[in-house]
Amino acid sequence: MQVSAMSEQECGELLQRVFIGRLGCSLDNQPYVVPVGFAYEPGYVYVFSTLGKKIEWMRENPKVCLQADEIGTSSNWVSVIVTGTYLELREPQYTIERQHARKLLAKHNNWWINAVTERREETNDIAIKGLFFRIDIETISGLRATG
Amino acid sequence: MQVSAMSEQECGELLQRVFIGRLGCSLDNQPYVVPVGFAYEPGYVYVFSTLGKKIEWMRENPKVCLQADEIGTSSNWVSVIVTGTYLELREPQYTIERQHARKLLAKHNNWWINAVTERREETNDIAIKGLFFRIDIETISGLRATG
Repeated sequence: MQVSAMSEQECGELLQRVFIGRLGCSLDNQPYVVPVGFAYEPGYVYVFSTLGKKIEWMRENPKVCLQADEIGTSSNWVSVIVTGTYLELREPQYTIERQHARKLLAKHNNWWINAVTERREETNDIAIKGLFFRIDIETISGLRATG
Repeated sequence: MQVSAMSEQECGELLQRVFIGRLGCSLDNQPYVVPVGFAYEPGYVYVFSTLGKKIEWMRENPKVCLQADEIGTSSNWVSVIVTGTYLELREPQYTIERQHARKLLAKHNNWWINAVTERREETNDIAIKGLFFRIDIETISGLRATG
């Protein structure tokens, strides 16, 4: 098995193929990791979410990490790690960016279901409003293993 | 689709079925997420690793998070989140715990390959020593979606 670093372009190609990633945020140096659906374009990651722990934490500390991978076997996998800054796409300031995020995310089937359903379960409130956020990418790196 | 909280027993069952999780650590409130192979038993998670960024960070800040999941479709998935404290199983103090960790991890094929190969690539040093660490679990929670 060989493990080698991926180029930035290869990392971007993985992030465009994959929809589910793991988002890491941190408060008072306690890390917290949750699966999210995301859309990528060079420089940015977009996520649709509802209010909850991860949003509260990222509002407090906008430093985030997103990890995405394709794991076939123990000797055939790729994994990409992005670090960056959380930016909540509020209206009306970020209306154009929200529309753009929605368009990119809509390429993935059912991209909105989990965020909304999860929240609805917790609140018994059917009038859930989602929010969009963007990660402004600062670093991107990846490893590829081939066996 | 329904999303419901999992019992601690259900969370434990998932952690016993799954081998790959995503480990979150944090330094100066910058989160960092990497895939790891792990073994679980009630109260503890065990990981074999080599030296590198995540180990350096966890030595500085032992607060960690491990997320594991089984994602079938967008409406059929389970996800478990563990938080806890990093404990490096150094010798000779933790010889018994290391042997125990090795035994649990050995149930998974090739559990040691990735840790060793990854490091070898970076250092060109074939004399790599692995280390074992344990996460002493503080909280455990999970969500299950059924469509």
